[in-house]
Amino acid sequence: MKNYCFGIDVGGTTVKMGLFQTDGHLVDKWEIPTRTEEGGKAILPDIADSALAKLAEKDISKDDVAGIGIGVPGPIDADGVVPHTANLGWGYKEVTKELSELTGVTCRGGNDANVAALGELWKGAAAGHKSGVMVTLGTGVGGGIILDGQIVIGTNGAGGEIGHIHVDDDIPWTCGCGNQGCLEQVASANGTVQLAKWMQETEPKETVLDLETMTSKEIWDAVKDGDAFACEVAERFGKYLGLALANVASTVDPEVFVIGGGVSKAGPVILDYIKKYYVKYTFKACRDAEFVLATLGNDAGIYGSAKLVIEE
Amino acid sequence: MKNYCFGIDVGGTTVKMGLFQTDGHLVDKWEIPTRTEEGGKAILPDIADSALAKLAEKDISKDDVAGIGIGVPGPIDADGVVPHTANLGWGYKEVTKELSELTGVTCRGGNDANVAALGELWKGAAAGHKSGVMVTLGTGVGGGIILDGQIVIGTNGAGGEIGHIHVDDDIPWTCGCGNQGCLEQVASANGTVQLAKWMQETEPKETVLDLETMTSKEIWDAVKDGDAFACEVAERFGKYLGLALANVASTVDPEVFVIGGGVSKAGPVILDYIKKYYVKYTFKACRDAEFVLATLGNDAGIYGSAKLVIEE
Repeated sequence: MKNYCFGIDVGGTTVKMGLFQTDGHLVDKWEIPTRTEEGGKAILPDIADSALAKLAEKDISKDDVAGIGIGVPGPIDADGVVPHTANLGWGYKEVTKELSELTGVTCRGGNDANVAALGELWKGAAAGHKSGVMVTLGTGVGGGIILDGQIVIGTNGAGGEIGHIHVDDDIPWTCGCGNQGCLEQVASANGTVQLAKWMQETEPKETVLDLETMTSKEIWDAVKDGDAFACEVAERFGKYLGLALANVASTVDPEVFVIGGGVSKAGPVILDYIKKYYVKYTFKACRDAEFVLATLGNDAGIYGSAKLVIEE
Repeated sequence: MKNYCFGIDVGGTTVKMGLFQTDGHLVDKWEIPTRTEEGGKAILPDIADSALAKLAEKDISKDDVAGIGIGVPGPIDADGVVPHTANLGWGYKEVTKELSELTGVTCRGGNDANVAALGELWKGAAAGHKSGVMVTLGTGVGGGIILDGQIVIGTNGAGGEIGHIHVDDDIPWTCGCGNQGCLEQVASANGTVQLAKWMQETEPKETVLDLETMTSKEIWDAVKDGDAFACEVAERFGKYLGLALANVASTVDPEVFVIGGGVSKAGPVILDYIKKYYVKYTFKACRDAEFVLATLGNDAGIYGSAKLVIEE
């Protein structure tokens, strides 16, 4: 049994890196810049150099490293191949094969939203659960599904694309994916603001919110202050998420739902709104699923990536 | 390597039984009555007796039997325990343990809709696929999800309960499950009839259909004959199923969808209506999922149950 492993979370501007003991203890974490220029050709060598330097610094032998797990922003297949990831500059890239060759260590890869889910189920809000669904309410709405400890990758890497579940025929603008009516359009940070604006256009109401400049945080603050309009927005947000997660439950019936991302910083109040509608829409047998707020924050990705290379 | 196994499909009135070679060849199939009286206490002994008698008849040694797979109508957990199955008369029952004790052969169990899906992926319409979703449009709407060759059972045995995906807030009557707006209410055989009646109540239209006595089959026959109202019903049916399956795709991203059950006997025309809306609602990456009609009919259950005890 080897004692160490790395969890890497590649983002568009920085790469988060973690050195872990294989029991899940985080030994050290740090960041390096993501150099996306020239087709992102320096990204993997930078990661390899930084990981190997960390081993030298800590006086850890490569023989004592179980592997390197790496999360990337986009689809990646079970063989660690990325077809194309625009925001890293990559075209087709055999990520885990290259990183393994650069480091001499076994590598495994996963999509960033999926590995975040794995991280929360391993050492975060849902620790101890074998099946769970994580929804990340950030700039977009990401999702990751873990069944019996394994990520649901999907045929096209689209397993857990919960943000693109269709929730409303009437949403009048278009999602980044090209469809109309996606959960992401009304439940991400920006989506919540768009939802509030749409509701005001449909039926103007008194509110403390500045409709031009409001943020998702301000909407949730207004909910907590009892602003009637903000509370209506929260109801609609809860309805969309509750409906989408009820339909996820009728599909994979998880033990737990983990809600993370910037929007979730509003706290337990968002769970109340989601659960109210989840219970209304879900199949009877699934009504008692747990709902928890994510606890690992930006570290979920390095934890989950590390878990990719740890067999239990 | 043992050469034989049994696939058993327990229904409310008859038990379908199949003796298979472990390469998937069906050696013999037959039926016995399901004796549900006295808490269904005779059901498993009857199955055991019938299986052992078949071995004697065929002069096959028990040592050459890999196992008995059994599908039951209701939730059953990974340990083969049924909490309660009303239509068999069973309360809590350790199905596979009891059947194994009665026969001296290893047993594994699954839900009937799930094993039907496994059967279609093994030897039916989706043979060769490792991941797929089957929807059975019969009296109700059943579903089964197979990922990487394994049934998605779910925490509460509700994996693949596609019939209870919520598809419409406006459906004015209540589903058997107690919710309102379930796919089953508008896409099962009876549901299609209810849908047609509801559409006529909302907006009466000319049609060749007798609104009092019409069946699902008659609606689809009218679609093929070009009846404008029947075609509107088919559009709505396609929209509901296409929407539900698009949301399933955003969750588990399968290779293939298998459509079975009595309604599917209408033929390829129903796939056209489903796919039209699936493509509209699904996440871009999932658009090329295959749609096929089930081919094993009532034998899907015995094939899938047999597959439960065959490791490949």
